[in-house]
Amino acid sequence: MTDDLFTGIGSGRLERQLRFLTEIDKAKLILRRTLLTDGSRRENDAEHSWHLAVMAAVLQEHAREPFSMERVLKMTLIHDLVEIYAGDTFAFDTAANAGKEDRETAAADRLFALLPPDQGQELRALWEEFDAMETADARYAAALDRLQPFLHNLCTQGHTWVLGKATRQQVMERSGPAMEALPALRPWMEAQIQKAIQNGWIRP
Amino acid sequence: MTDDLFTGIGSGRLERQLRFLTEIDKAKLILRRTLLTDGSRRENDAEHSWHLAVMAAVLQEHAREPFSMERVLKMTLIHDLVEIYAGDTFAFDTAANAGKEDRETAAADRLFALLPPDQGQELRALWEEFDAMETADARYAAALDRLQPFLHNLCTQGHTWVLGKATRQQVMERSGPAMEALPALRPWMEAQIQKAIQNGWIRP
Repeated sequence: MTDDLFTGIGSGRLERQLRFLTEIDKAKLILRRTLLTDGSRRENDAEHSWHLAVMAAVLQEHAREPFSMERVLKMTLIHDLVEIYAGDTFAFDTAANAGKEDRETAAADRLFALLPPDQGQELRALWEEFDAMETADARYAAALDRLQPFLHNLCTQGHTWVLGKATRQQVMERSGPAMEALPALRPWMEAQIQKAIQNGWIRP
Repeated sequence: MTDDLFTGIGSGRLERQLRFLTEIDKAKLILRRTLLTDGSRRENDAEHSWHLAVMAAVLQEHAREPFSMERVLKMTLIHDLVEIYAGDTFAFDTAANAGKEDRETAAADRLFALLPPDQGQELRALWEEFDAMETADARYAAALDRLQPFLHNLCTQGHTWVLGKATRQQVMERSGPAMEALPALRPWMEAQIQKAIQNGWIRP
């Protein structure tokens, strides 16, 4: 019934925007491997993206580089949208990560085409910038994307580390962008990784 | 185990910020009456807030008044945080809405106190501004907060309208801020309300 819900509404732009905004509701159904901090269930992409965005605002003063809050907020909000079609790729699954780029490019082609072309291009460029981690905005957004599941793992007995049989080296690499962009967090993160190894959550 | 997770980390500010960012994970457990657009389950506050923030970015060109994107994004992200302690209050439950303000004020006292005082005050002021709907930023954010469940209702056979036995007048009042701040949407919203009455989802 939603197919004709927006037909003929105002300008063609509004119709496309509302179709896109309805389609992205599916992000609430894309489950990550990460558990909520109370361990009760898996987290979905919409919740995860919301959490990153609030973190971006609250941790601003600790960022190593100046950044644009508006751009970082938008980046965190849309960074996982392609997973609506490409699915979530588990960070510690090396085989799955091999095909990730192709899957996500195809998904982006399909998803961002729903929007008016200028907006589709803008959001796609923002997503590509996030993924490349080559600008200050992207480095800060990516740092939060690494810190948030780190926090969740500490609250859930290292859930995804255990699940992925992650080694110290893998976790250090995965957490690197967070430690670099948020240097005040590095000593604490390193100490928590040591504790997690002692707890048997991370392989030495 | 999370009680001592952040003790002694960097400055006292960082410890408070991380405690707050962990505490707000509970927003993912606060269920609204609204269903996801596929009708599969109730939506939670974190997902809802994420959806509003993306809508703020995508519908920008239709706003009646100029607004600050950064402030609106932050507003949509934090506007329901007090519900972590106060619970969600169903829009069409008149009795429950009578005690809403007191419950939410007490919740705000408790929640924002977790943060360093300057940040707690900043986020609380943003939440109060949202609730008062007296600035352009708040009017635009509130419009999205009315449009999003409207959209979800159209996709789910008027779920919360039916649940709350909502009348045309109630839905018009509830939707008013969206029609005012996003005038391009008014004719479509009014037509959809008429259709919903014909479908028996809204009482005439």
